Amino acid sequence: MKFIEKLISISRKNNSLLCVGLDTDREKIPKFLLKDHDPVLSFNQKIIESTCDLVCAYKPNIAFYEAYGSKGWEALKKTCEAVPKEIPIIIDAKRGDIGNTARMYAKAIFEDLGADAVTVNPYMGEDAISPFLEYENKCAFILCLTSNKSAQDFQLFLIDGKPLYQIVAEKVITWNEKGNCGLVVGATYPEQLKKIREIAKSLPILIPGIGAQSGEIEPTVKFGTDERGERAIINSSRGIIYASQKDDFAEAARDQALKLKDRINLYRQM
Amino acid sequence: MKFIEKLISISRKNNSLLCVGLDTDREKIPKFLLKDHDPVLSFNQKIIESTCDLVCAYKPNIAFYEAYGSKGWEALKKTCEAVPKEIPIIIDAKRGDIGNTARMYAKAIFEDLGADAVTVNPYMGEDAISPFLEYENKCAFILCLTSNKSAQDFQLFLIDGKPLYQIVAEKVITWNEKGNCGLVVGATYPEQLKKIREIAKSLPILIPGIGAQSGEIEPTVKFGTDERGERAIINSSRGIIYASQKDDFAEAARDQALKLKDRINLYRQM
Repeated sequence: MKFIEKLISISRKNNSLLCVGLDTDREKIPKFLLKDHDPVLSFNQKIIESTCDLVCAYKPNIAFYEAYGSKGWEALKKTCEAVPKEIPIIIDAKRGDIGNTARMYAKAIFEDLGADAVTVNPYMGEDAISPFLEYENKCAFILCLTSNKSAQDFQLFLIDGKPLYQIVAEKVITWNEKGNCGLVVGATYPEQLKKIREIAKSLPILIPGIGAQSGEIEPTVKFGTDERGERAIINSSRGIIYASQKDDFAEAARDQALKLKDRINLYRQM
Repeated sequence: MKFIEKLISISRKNNSLLCVGLDTDREKIPKFLLKDHDPVLSFNQKIIESTCDLVCAYKPNIAFYEAYGSKGWEALKKTCEAVPKEIPIIIDAKRGDIGNTARMYAKAIFEDLGADAVTVNPYMGEDAISPFLEYENKCAFILCLTSNKSAQDFQLFLIDGKPLYQIVAEKVITWNEKGNCGLVVGATYPEQLKKIREIAKSLPILIPGIGAQSGEIEPTVKFGTDERGERAIINSSRGIIYASQKDDFAEAARDQALKLKDRINLYRQM
């Protein structure tokens, strides 16, 4: 099954555009979990169990696992195994390197971890992305306009009157022959998100930046979804997974996820 | 000790600008090593032993280790431990993400692996780089103009008449307050390397792309070094480490490393 089909299928079943970011930091999870053999894994398993009927995807950020070396990698792999098969896993890795190296990253993420999708960086151009696109049923989300403040350092530069992020979006459309490309656009740039959706009508767009990074929900949903109110993947990490430090943390995460899913749906055109 | 001091110190001691890229692929190492407990580690240890008086740095590309999951990470960590303390280790990771995530990558590479330097991607701008720069004695090599063909997709774009890679180089100089920035410039673009060295007179420049990627040595050395013939780190991976498939592989690697070091020195202005 193609990634986009898997995404739309679960998105309809769960009536959700919400993606929960599993940026799990050992130092921020409830203290009582630290006695477990693998506290990060225990935490993630509980979060997944309590939210899996509310989401369209999970997005673990690989940096949070690599920071703990090989043990972290094991925790990430087992976290991926804990996600129900019908829900896509997007590894937020922002990789990008020359061909023979990109193939190794693709192998790590799609084969070793068994994930469905990955975020990648466009700076090095097409040949750094194409090894990911050889996996027809996976998806590469290419950074287009990121949610951070310094996105402005380069991504808004005008080239012959056109901003760099727009040129990236247009290039990605030409790379999308197998229908397995997506874009990453921060919720913190709603006007630009609107422009990008106009250009990339059918691409899935992964949208970080609501919540802790203060992107607003209404324009994110209105501008980020396609004409059927789909194909936007709206991520929240810290606001959901760290909703409580007590032993009700999983239910508290569920409450926050449910609230956010419903608020997102308020603005969907369906 | 600052990274640049460590680099110059070993570079003078070994009279070398050569960096050996440890892009070790299980499928390309001599078959007789596959019976070892950790074949990649055994291979790297032998390569390091046989070349450590000929190099100014080692550059493992992290993708080749991640492709083997947590075992790969262990092999990388032990490879770093096998490098003599006086030789800098540059992890080629091309990372880049928002602040709280970049901090995790910095922790993984500088603390868990104990490396001296890392390659990072500029697309997300300053706040994705600054967490790496908080480590005063480490170094972040920012991708400027990469060695691959598709570097042309975006990096050569003109913004008000100035190419993007040049703007990146100029920005990096402003980020270099603690003297711990470097640049990555491919040997495949010698004219641009010359221009970048003129702009970034004192920055270390990591130069991949000779050998398998066909960058030429003479212009690389002439244009990549500073006025004292230093601060260029010229990488070769496949041409050195896979010089032989037999049990003389380490000596064969040494021969190739010695040849390349000497050819590089032919063109240095010292």
